[in-house]
Amino acid sequence: MTSKEIAESFTALLKAGRHEEAAAKFNADDIVSVEAMEGPMAKCQGREAVKAKSDWWYAHHEVHSVTTEGPFVNGNQFAVRFEMDITAKETGQRMQMAEIGLYTMKDGKIVEERFFY
Amino acid sequence: MTSKEIAESFTALLKAGRHEEAAAKFNADDIVSVEAMEGPMAKCQGREAVKAKSDWWYAHHEVHSVTTEGPFVNGNQFAVRFEMDITAKETGQRMQMAEIGLYTMKDGKIVEERFFY
Repeated sequence: MTSKEIAESFTALLKAGRHEEAAAKFNADDIVSVEAMEGPMAKCQGREAVKAKSDWWYAHHEVHSVTTEGPFVNGNQFAVRFEMDITAKETGQRMQMAEIGLYTMKDGKIVEERFFY
Repeated sequence: MTSKEIAESFTALLKAGRHEEAAAKFNADDIVSVEAMEGPMAKCQGREAVKAKSDWWYAHHEVHSVTTEGPFVNGNQFAVRFEMDITAKETGQRMQMAEIGLYTMKDGKIVEERFFY
């Protein structure tokens, strides 16, 4: 698959709500995930650590809707825009937010995901 | 200014249609600009070369509307989403397109702009 095909296939799975399958299929074993925050939680590495972060997020948020736009491709990187309507379960606070995920590929796998908001 | 303040100030100028002022104020002298294409035109370097590319683009397109969303920030980088309604003057073809610009800062200036579409 070309970089563009990987970007399109990955994003198609996200649009179908199959985010776990997208990660299982395309994340590299040593993927690095970088959030837009300070501190030790900002960065985690490895397929299992990234899956644990994702599982935590889905366990702590009720997702009312997600709109996924993209991919926007440039070489070995692509961006995806997410628009989310969610409720944080602990506080009950409902939020509408947009964010952008930037994905870097190497050897047909995603080696970094970096989130902007 | 913090990275977040630079990102917000730069994007505010873009939203106001003042893109030349944004570039003049925040682009580093040796800024690198990377388009999502193959070949020698994909990358150009230097404030003047980047301005020439921008001038060329505005000379060859009629801009009906631009919607600018952002900034989406992560550390020393930020993303901006553009939605454009333009006509290519040479062909007369009208196009609606969305793209994402990823900007990298160093020492208070933008040292790289990279476009995804």
